[in-house]
Amino acid sequence: MLTILTEKRTLGVNFHDECSPTALVWAPHARKLALVAENRQQYSFKRMEYGYWQCACPGLKPGDRYLLQINDKKELPDPASLSQPDGVHLASQCIDLNTIRQIKSESWQGISTAQLIIYEVHVGTFTQQGTFKALTQKLAHLKELGVNAIEIMPVAQFPGHRNWGYDGVFPFATQHSYGGPYELAKMVKACHDHCIAVILDVVYNHLGPEGNYFEEFAPYFTGKYNTPWGKAINFDDAWCDSVRRFFLENALMWFRDFHIDGLRLDAIHAIKDDGPKHFLAELSELVHMLNKKNNSRHFLIAESDLNDTRVISPIQENGYGMDAQWCDEWHHALHALLTGETNGYYSDFGKTSHLAKAMNHGWVHDGIYSQHRKKIYGTPTAGIPGERFVIYTQNHDQTGNRIQGDRLSKLTDFESLKLAATAMLMSPFTPMLFMGEEFAEQNPFLFFISHSDTHLVKKVQRGRKREYRDFMKNGDPPDPQDEETFKKSKLNWNFTGEPQKVQLFNFYKACIALRQSHPLFKQIDRHNTRAIDIKGSEVILFYRQHQGRSMITAMNFSHREQSVSIPGVIPEQWEVLLYSGHEKWGGHTPESEQQVIMQENEIASLALCARSALVMAVKA
Amino acid sequence: MLTILTEKRTLGVNFHDECSPTALVWAPHARKLALVAENRQQYSFKRMEYGYWQCACPGLKPGDRYLLQINDKKELPDPASLSQPDGVHLASQCIDLNTIRQIKSESWQGISTAQLIIYEVHVGTFTQQGTFKALTQKLAHLKELGVNAIEIMPVAQFPGHRNWGYDGVFPFATQHSYGGPYELAKMVKACHDHCIAVILDVVYNHLGPEGNYFEEFAPYFTGKYNTPWGKAINFDDAWCDSVRRFFLENALMWFRDFHIDGLRLDAIHAIKDDGPKHFLAELSELVHMLNKKNNSRHFLIAESDLNDTRVISPIQENGYGMDAQWCDEWHHALHALLTGETNGYYSDFGKTSHLAKAMNHGWVHDGIYSQHRKKIYGTPTAGIPGERFVIYTQNHDQTGNRIQGDRLSKLTDFESLKLAATAMLMSPFTPMLFMGEEFAEQNPFLFFISHSDTHLVKKVQRGRKREYRDFMKNGDPPDPQDEETFKKSKLNWNFTGEPQKVQLFNFYKACIALRQSHPLFKQIDRHNTRAIDIKGSEVILFYRQHQGRSMITAMNFSHREQSVSIPGVIPEQWEVLLYSGHEKWGGHTPESEQQVIMQENEIASLALCARSALVMAVKA
Repeated sequence: MLTILTEKRTLGVNFHDECSPTALVWAPHARKLALVAENRQQYSFKRMEYGYWQCACPGLKPGDRYLLQINDKKELPDPASLSQPDGVHLASQCIDLNTIRQIKSESWQGISTAQLIIYEVHVGTFTQQGTFKALTQKLAHLKELGVNAIEIMPVAQFPGHRNWGYDGVFPFATQHSYGGPYELAKMVKACHDHCIAVILDVVYNHLGPEGNYFEEFAPYFTGKYNTPWGKAINFDDAWCDSVRRFFLENALMWFRDFHIDGLRLDAIHAIKDDGPKHFLAELSELVHMLNKKNNSRHFLIAESDLNDTRVISPIQENGYGMDAQWCDEWHHALHALLTGETNGYYSDFGKTSHLAKAMNHGWVHDGIYSQHRKKIYGTPTAGIPGERFVIYTQNHDQTGNRIQGDRLSKLTDFESLKLAATAMLMSPFTPMLFMGEEFAEQNPFLFFISHSDTHLVKKVQRGRKREYRDFMKNGDPPDPQDEETFKKSKLNWNFTGEPQKVQLFNFYKACIALRQSHPLFKQIDRHNTRAIDIKGSEVILFYRQHQGRSMITAMNFSHREQSVSIPGVIPEQWEVLLYSGHEKWGGHTPESEQQVIMQENEIASLALCARSALVMAVKA
Repeated sequence: MLTILTEKRTLGVNFHDECSPTALVWAPHARKLALVAENRQQYSFKRMEYGYWQCACPGLKPGDRYLLQINDKKELPDPASLSQPDGVHLASQCIDLNTIRQIKSESWQGISTAQLIIYEVHVGTFTQQGTFKALTQKLAHLKELGVNAIEIMPVAQFPGHRNWGYDGVFPFATQHSYGGPYELAKMVKACHDHCIAVILDVVYNHLGPEGNYFEEFAPYFTGKYNTPWGKAINFDDAWCDSVRRFFLENALMWFRDFHIDGLRLDAIHAIKDDGPKHFLAELSELVHMLNKKNNSRHFLIAESDLNDTRVISPIQENGYGMDAQWCDEWHHALHALLTGETNGYYSDFGKTSHLAKAMNHGWVHDGIYSQHRKKIYGTPTAGIPGERFVIYTQNHDQTGNRIQGDRLSKLTDFESLKLAATAMLMSPFTPMLFMGEEFAEQNPFLFFISHSDTHLVKKVQRGRKREYRDFMKNGDPPDPQDEETFKKSKLNWNFTGEPQKVQLFNFYKACIALRQSHPLFKQIDRHNTRAIDIKGSEVILFYRQHQGRSMITAMNFSHREQSVSIPGVIPEQWEVLLYSGHEKWGGHTPESEQQVIMQENEIASLALCARSALVMAVKA
């Protein structure tokens, strides 16, 4: 099966140089199948092996709309549709992927995952226009900031014009309101021309509830497992081979035709597969094969809640072979420390020792008991390179799943934002920013939808209220269906009269520049680093060492000024690289003031303002 | 946690040499807990960590009945009860495991899994009395037959007096109607004194529906997965550690206190565990640790439908470390060939090529498409020793899940029974007989229950009818609740006037003796063997080779006499070891007749009656 997959797309409607367009549909239980073009011309499918149906469609042109007619009755859009210009319920549109594939940056060579500094973007709220095109106009900002990859939240066609993307129902169709497939391809090209990689968030664990006609075609779901979204996608039950193929082809299309660099796989803990080769391992193999064949550098990042190194271990070691995974517990350790929040999953965190452990191990629960989960959780991470952990001080989930969608900028003080940025950017892990965090965006990022199914809307509204039951003291959650909720979530790009926006942006720039240019970051791996929790002080010292040189990042999480001694460091050796408390970054300390003081016996001592971070280089 | 487990039992009521009896119960959501003795004396539990409750019970004696009172209300039997003399709904009974542990054979040293010849027994129907004690009286028969292990279907307390055992609800309590824990211990001792190992079938994938009070105590189940029996046992969700511990302690008790040699783990494909270490891997580790500590030879055999070598691969290779697993597909390949049945899962089988593949690979679907399952199924078995596959020509499931519970003796002719036995016993796998097959038992093995919950009884009755919907031409299935159904399933030990019973028994004896004594079986492993499907003839030649010697088993599955040539074998070399068609085994060929004939060019040619098997030794 895999050999088919390295060739051109086969599912859906395809155009060819030398013969008529063809269509391929998987519908094992159908008795009859026809493609109905917008001019009502019908093309009859012929049944093939394993429940596939094939037909030639002479006369069908790119841009034409079509539906699939099952058993002479229902006319439905194509599960493998590439475009849904009239929404999720109406006709699919033919797209010639050959022309998409031509939209390509000539200079782009791909990026190594070890270098990644990611910036997570929701296309609809990143700009006022909310399109791929408008996003392209912000590339100069991102370039100046210094990130080298954007990760865009899912773009598979969802119901209506406003959605985070996780309600997508046409995994191959690019959201029309964002600009559709051609605009996406152009955006990717523009990013690549700016030396920015593009990571696409894809959802292989469920399909959205509205416009989901998959079960009319084939057994895409299984009752073996229950997920938060109902029945699981069928990766291991009867007929699973073709479901697996559907999603493998999808991944392949983004890489091969849209030149997407990496995929971020949503909530892989809900991709249930008891078979001998997990779907994700098969997907990894496909990507490795593609990279080998084309000398390309495509990669996979999983969102995993499992704290299980199996996800990011090589296939040869019985892992899933993911290049990296999201590391929520690093976030939780930092967030609980910065905000003092102790509700829900934050109850397992809140001490500097947690963050120190996260700095050393990626996640905190590595085989220890979690009071929140009520079980022993996670595996040790020894031997796993640091780049395999994607960390963040906030992301769409951690922000948007709060009742008022508050960003960290609303939950803590300005100094803490710089402290958080330092912890993330000096870490041995792969940092990811959430759009706007670099300029302390004050607007919330709320949960929003624009379904047309009113029952469903009510259900979502009720569900959100229920979810927030314990936090409803501040009034009802914003109505997810209300367009205002969406509008309120857009970034405010106006920096005038907002010095802190500029100061924070410059601080992020400086941290990123340091990470990208300092020789000690050439050996970025975590095995050269060590975090020490200074007992009783709420201070973490983070060491990075290589060939006799070292860098110390001192982070004061307390709300008081502190003096921290660094044994063994003598005056000639140190150099302050960055101090978040300096006035130029909006802090209270003039640049002329010394942060490193020598005490008796020549022990270096750091003067750290409340909630500040200092990075210094020490020569041997 | 594992370190606790190698010590004495901790859950339930325990007796100690030097202090009062103690009780330990896991009930994390209880607000109050008390043990109520039969004299109404109450002992109050004290809450411990992780939802455990502990108390001392001075005055409580072995044999006393007790209940557990939750929140001053419900009084329920103990989930970790060792004895339920009044059935599943009433009081538990205290048992002193220390005295059980003393009932021990002094001579028994354990057995290697490579030597096993297993005999599956249902205690209730094996003898007229249906007890452990009565079973003991048949050990001379088993000893004469030559098997060296019995595998007894589950003995955990189930509702009523008649049940296969898979409706057990007290995993630690030995079925009272079989004789209870002391009689089980005595039976194990008697088996060991006869050099027969005891394998116990245990059910860790579900608990029976009647008398199941587990959820009153703790979250033993999870809604994450659906199994044929409803919600899955909670091996990986919140609170799972104590559920895992419960079953680990159970396994340990059978080994440590009852001196059970091996456990047969029911339907492990329904033991759902997405955690980093599968419950079965943890169980394997426990058994390895126990063996190392005590220099013992306990082992684990899984019933697995997965065709996945992960189950029987070592833990170091990310396997579950099972010592062996049931191999249904070997059975299916043989059964379809012998009976010509093609319904249900037999549709994937029926040719000699299937059985030849099974003789070579254990299972047939090793990464190929299964028409019945509608998916690519299984993994290749290269490198897995033959002893890890337990094979059978029939077992309780394959017999008892037929509408009329017909054994192979009812489905095919007498000659085919010997052919089947030869295929099994000459194979490189671990053979398992189902009680009575060695004397062509004619009584059925039917599905039977004796629930007291009438709603449940109706549900089971309806369920059975539904299951057999497609096969109901021969009338309704026997009523599982009717005692007659149980009685009809008992073995008929009367051999008088039944020469075939004796002939078949003697044939089994001869095959087993050959397997146990012939030098070529010292190297029993499958890598010295090869099955060849002789195209167009329905004959399989099975070669076993070692150090220049070889053994050839020729099996004629056709309904006609055949002559099969064996190239390269010359007269001085061969010796017939066993021929199923001989008169002494009830066949039609006088012993004086030659089965190996030399043709021109001195090619040996075998004369094989319809449905016969011949084993011959060939010297180099």
